[in-house]
Amino acid sequence: VRRAAVSVLGAGGWGTALAILLARRGMNVTLWARSPEIAAALERDRENRRLLPNVPFPGGLRVTGNLADAAGGARDALVIAVPSHGLGAIAGALRGLWRSGGPPLVSVTKGFDPETRRRPSEVLRAVLEAGEPDVCALSGPSYAPEAVRDVPTAVVAACPHLATAERIQAIFHAPRFRVYTHRDLVGVELGGALKNVVAVACGIADGLGFGDNTRAALVTRGLAEITRLGVALGARRETFMGLAGLGDLVVTCTGAHSRNRALGRRIGVGERLAEALAASPQVVEGVAAARTVRTLAREHRVEMPIAERVHAVLFEGMPPSEALRGLLEREARSEEEREAPRA
Amino acid sequence: VRRAAVSVLGAGGWGTALAILLARRGMNVTLWARSPEIAAALERDRENRRLLPNVPFPGGLRVTGNLADAAGGARDALVIAVPSHGLGAIAGALRGLWRSGGPPLVSVTKGFDPETRRRPSEVLRAVLEAGEPDVCALSGPSYAPEAVRDVPTAVVAACPHLATAERIQAIFHAPRFRVYTHRDLVGVELGGALKNVVAVACGIADGLGFGDNTRAALVTRGLAEITRLGVALGARRETFMGLAGLGDLVVTCTGAHSRNRALGRRIGVGERLAEALAASPQVVEGVAAARTVRTLAREHRVEMPIAERVHAVLFEGMPPSEALRGLLEREARSEEEREAPRA
Repeated sequence: VRRAAVSVLGAGGWGTALAILLARRGMNVTLWARSPEIAAALERDRENRRLLPNVPFPGGLRVTGNLADAAGGARDALVIAVPSHGLGAIAGALRGLWRSGGPPLVSVTKGFDPETRRRPSEVLRAVLEAGEPDVCALSGPSYAPEAVRDVPTAVVAACPHLATAERIQAIFHAPRFRVYTHRDLVGVELGGALKNVVAVACGIADGLGFGDNTRAALVTRGLAEITRLGVALGARRETFMGLAGLGDLVVTCTGAHSRNRALGRRIGVGERLAEALAASPQVVEGVAAARTVRTLAREHRVEMPIAERVHAVLFEGMPPSEALRGLLEREARSEEEREAPRA
Repeated sequence: VRRAAVSVLGAGGWGTALAILLARRGMNVTLWARSPEIAAALERDRENRRLLPNVPFPGGLRVTGNLADAAGGARDALVIAVPSHGLGAIAGALRGLWRSGGPPLVSVTKGFDPETRRRPSEVLRAVLEAGEPDVCALSGPSYAPEAVRDVPTAVVAACPHLATAERIQAIFHAPRFRVYTHRDLVGVELGGALKNVVAVACGIADGLGFGDNTRAALVTRGLAEITRLGVALGARRETFMGLAGLGDLVVTCTGAHSRNRALGRRIGVGERLAEALAASPQVVEGVAAARTVRTLAREHRVEMPIAERVHAVLFEGMPPSEALRGLLEREARSEEEREAPRA
């Protein structure tokens, strides 16, 4: 039996976790870190001490700082696990390394290219002109520390070409890491990117001392506004009711591990954005996403009151208490008119 | 200006909280407790020591153990806040007390009549033949201890007759207790009843040591199966995406105060149902609802794998770990086929 060979580009928490999960099943996995120093430290410690401590690397997991090496070893799948602001650079570097007939790309990035506002799969496809590789998004409620200790987790693998989604499913699926195929790549990518903005709003509410009632109302309205924008951008409405929409929104807005919510909480208690960002060991995708979402919402004339106010608090100096008050005191009197889709 | 006069039947946590909220705004509120002893203790302590401690009753809140007294004082609204198993008895006792032209009834009960499987508004209407009072359901993510300390909370007031929903909205709405009208009484009542069963499932997963990833997957699939049954029973699909569906599901499955989730957790760590029930100071509606939902799902041929397994664990001796394994290992390979509505 031939062993599958997969490379993971990006040694953050989730990239590391996916590499470990696949290597535990006997696959040949290459994990690429962006600097030779980080790669050397990971290889020396045989664990990711900073982002996923106490989870040893299995034998089949090899670390490299050389992108050509990682890309060349990816016979079955090439996983892109870099932050959204690094997507353009990775895609550029991959040009010339990825060859026609090469493996499908699997994006696990949840965000937008900050310059072009493109989704991750669009960034990857636009750069990799040769042969137009199939790009699949793997997304859903999946904290890395839980997934690596085999907490039951369910995600979707999304690609318009079902056969590609099924290839990726066959690689990643396991009894406690369930992978379901999906064809709505647009909706799955948008769900992952947009929920981070709502999570920042939930954190702000937490920081203001509000409770579970408030958070549940924000999640409900947040999903409604995410869905409105998603549909305007070509996604299917039902996708947002699934694992990559509602599921990921719930885990990010209520779970213990969310860095987006943690950042919001710091903002809610009065910290400045720069301080709150400095306190996070990992990239907080919701901050950049708040800028992109606001632009997209205005371009497409979609009402997104939560995202508007997160933007106002993060970048326009609006006090958190004023933002939340404004949200709560909107004038809609019927839930049905509020939730009605815009034409 | 005439002061509104409202009575609340049932001095549980939520009934007490609603009575306090209205009395703080200067309304004349009568709170009925089911026994003269409880009524006397509430009046003596001027607080509900057992279920809502340290929240003093405002001056305009009067306690009684006499149902005729309470019903007679309800000029503007009569709130029914008894557990679902007590609805039939209350409705029977109200026959002859509620007169044609009397106030609208407001049901805040989240469950089904265990004998007839009727929704609360159906139970109330079936008994109160004279004049067929309008029944409104007030529902949404609203923990009593948070609402009484003015944590921002949003709920819906649902009645097919919009004018009645608006009357109830006018009574209950406040800057930090937002009330939105809704016309889908069926959907709003079902959302409140069905989410408790999913919360028990989430508790079982917690008790088995699972994490946020698992809970988010259960919430996502739980909402899908609740929606399937709701639509089969005549509700509108969109209602389940709103405050009384998704909102209440999120707060119950992830919040700090859920008695349904707490009971599930005890079951998940191996306690028997009788022990787990004895540990709860309040009625755990999800247990009775699990029986009703299973019957309804079979009658209407709706697939509800989560509710089926909660039933199996609570009443058929299935070990919790086997139930969760069964859920996780279902064979669907695509999220789209899984979520497709049944004809």
